[in-house]
Amino acid sequence: MAVKNALYAQSGGVTAVINATACGVIETARKMPGRIGKVYAARNGVIGTLVEDLIDTTHESPAAIRSLWNTPAAAYGSCRYELPDPEQSPRHYERLLEVCRAHNIGYFLYNGGNGSADIAHKIGVCLPRMGYPIVSIGIPKTIDNDIAITDCSPGFGSAAKYAATSMREAAADVASMAATSTKVFVLELMGRHSGWITAACGLAWERGQGPHLLLLPEIPFDRDGFLARVRTMVEKHGYCAVAAAEGLKTPDGEWLSQAAVSRNYGHEQLGGVAPIVAELIRSELHYKVHWSVVDYLQRSARHLASLTDLKQSYAVGRAAVQLAAKGRSGVMPVIVRESSRPYRWRIGTADLQDIANKEKMVPRDFITENGFHITEKCRRYLAPLIEGEDLPPFRNGLPVHAKLKNVKLRKKLRGGFEV
Amino acid sequence: MAVKNALYAQSGGVTAVINATACGVIETARKMPGRIGKVYAARNGVIGTLVEDLIDTTHESPAAIRSLWNTPAAAYGSCRYELPDPEQSPRHYERLLEVCRAHNIGYFLYNGGNGSADIAHKIGVCLPRMGYPIVSIGIPKTIDNDIAITDCSPGFGSAAKYAATSMREAAADVASMAATSTKVFVLELMGRHSGWITAACGLAWERGQGPHLLLLPEIPFDRDGFLARVRTMVEKHGYCAVAAAEGLKTPDGEWLSQAAVSRNYGHEQLGGVAPIVAELIRSELHYKVHWSVVDYLQRSARHLASLTDLKQSYAVGRAAVQLAAKGRSGVMPVIVRESSRPYRWRIGTADLQDIANKEKMVPRDFITENGFHITEKCRRYLAPLIEGEDLPPFRNGLPVHAKLKNVKLRKKLRGGFEV
Repeated sequence: MAVKNALYAQSGGVTAVINATACGVIETARKMPGRIGKVYAARNGVIGTLVEDLIDTTHESPAAIRSLWNTPAAAYGSCRYELPDPEQSPRHYERLLEVCRAHNIGYFLYNGGNGSADIAHKIGVCLPRMGYPIVSIGIPKTIDNDIAITDCSPGFGSAAKYAATSMREAAADVASMAATSTKVFVLELMGRHSGWITAACGLAWERGQGPHLLLLPEIPFDRDGFLARVRTMVEKHGYCAVAAAEGLKTPDGEWLSQAAVSRNYGHEQLGGVAPIVAELIRSELHYKVHWSVVDYLQRSARHLASLTDLKQSYAVGRAAVQLAAKGRSGVMPVIVRESSRPYRWRIGTADLQDIANKEKMVPRDFITENGFHITEKCRRYLAPLIEGEDLPPFRNGLPVHAKLKNVKLRKKLRGGFEV
Repeated sequence: MAVKNALYAQSGGVTAVINATACGVIETARKMPGRIGKVYAARNGVIGTLVEDLIDTTHESPAAIRSLWNTPAAAYGSCRYELPDPEQSPRHYERLLEVCRAHNIGYFLYNGGNGSADIAHKIGVCLPRMGYPIVSIGIPKTIDNDIAITDCSPGFGSAAKYAATSMREAAADVASMAATSTKVFVLELMGRHSGWITAACGLAWERGQGPHLLLLPEIPFDRDGFLARVRTMVEKHGYCAVAAAEGLKTPDGEWLSQAAVSRNYGHEQLGGVAPIVAELIRSELHYKVHWSVVDYLQRSARHLASLTDLKQSYAVGRAAVQLAAKGRSGVMPVIVRESSRPYRWRIGTADLQDIANKEKMVPRDFITENGFHITEKCRRYLAPLIEGEDLPPFRNGLPVHAKLKNVKLRKKLRGGFEV
């Protein structure tokens, strides 16, 4: 019987470096033809598997696969999709089995966050129970850095580097204009539940320079305490730079962006915590305020990726294939930190069931007592993750992204599938 | 009598490369000690001159001055300040004369946009009339690219490169998620009157990829036409990426961000045109929409500066000193384009009175007939301005900015001055 093929798919919010993981998967698999057959990629995560929308990556040249290293976002498409439990919807698993059998897939490699680990876990448990042996492996990825067990999440280091660099640059701008113009700047970062990216902005801090205050979802928003500190910073330094997580919550546990209708927090909003915080400062302290919401830019800024993050993203892809070749189903390669200074890490493994649907928050001892900044312990944890630059190739002044052929596999199953 | 000193000052909104101009000024002046004495820098533009808050740059090492090349924002502080006309306020000019005389200043080099050219012009005309000979020179700088006569404005190329790169990266993000998540992305760029930075986003366009639509202040916002095109793009490409200038106007000539209270454009806003356009799309077309307002990040992103822009910024600083040494008062060094492909440029000069308070808009033939994109002619103009990368030095994963001593000159005048 022919050697089994591998199916790779990308899931959940994208990152600047998830394609470096794809690069690691494909390059590694190509080096072990006796163990792993072809690498197929599913379009748009598990959805492509269900609807048999598959890409044959063997048509790509080595240079094209290498260019994935330089390309942000999901080269094969991603999805936000919850795979129902097998008890709720056996037909989903029957279909996955049919597709895998039709294309001789023996390895399922699912690249995503906590929710994606759950999908990889379900497939790895259910298909063998139904009589179809498959090695299912999760590969970590998320800018949110909230995956359990792994020391950090591939994708986070680059978002962190982007956030801290942007904060340093914008704070220099505000500092130089504050005498006659803007006194306060609010930068909003992603993180609906955990404040890791906002915390990383704290790395840009230097004596007297911004960011002066961080607003994390882990600390309920203390309106009056915050305003008092903004005033103090402006009086002391001439200006105040603030980093705020989108998931900032009121003491009642409500998201500030949703609580904004109340007159305590200013006018009604269309979303975005930065304009709300900015309006609060403007109306209460009468400073000129500017704000920024970087949104997708922070998770696609490959031009400012962390080289450490790129290397780890590649390494988890490579490790996933090596684990697959050994038949290690139900696991995820994770980053194990051996030392912070100097920074040393290696790849370990964790069971998918210990990772699925868990969330890792910024620990309380990473946050200063007053709640408005990060501690030295946090800096020690974060600092190595943003180390190293790797400017992608530019042409005509702009970064060059992979141009894949993405040749589709001919469908073998009759009939479609309603996802 | 001792050789006269030069006073350099930075004015108006900052850029990622205005300090490269400072670098050009100081390095050039240091090479001609027989013609130019010391270079002083005024704190916060002309305000520092008025209040005698001056810095002696001779205390900085050559390496420190060189590091200005790598440093965004205004190293000496900038200001938003209109110098009154001499008829309105003779005391301002008397004071400027006193300060210049006290510190033996023979050259005034003012680095800014249209308004700053006006200040340099007034000083160059009035002080000699009052019996104090001074050579006053404007040096161009603005991300807005709206300075008259010069082919482009130093500072713009870097903002343009940042905008186009960010658009390409974020569009890749949206493209890869659109099957199950966000279908439309709106990126807001600066430009209250002219749409140059938004136009530059158009450089990121490639067949089938974003940005699909540009919203420029030069073209009144056609609500229904825009919505129809968004729908077409989503149906054709699966998603739609939009770049919108903050100064986008309604057909009545009102700023969209101010007109937003009306129910036609959604909820009341705190500022920002992107959330308004996003809400319009969401409510009318029922697509999931994300938006980003980059604000100060686009004018301080030295990490992604255009090397062409850096060279031009340095060159206008150098040229200003050379013009000063020749006694050429009342002028501004400008960029003259000799050829687009290959790109060739040189420094020319223009009279300040031809530049002061004028604004250069995006010409109609740079915009496609339907108003939603840029023409080939515009691409040909913009393309060379974003060419070349120059990653600044990084330490601990973050860009290193100049650390200047900024030694203050001892005040020689009695009494302060109320600006």
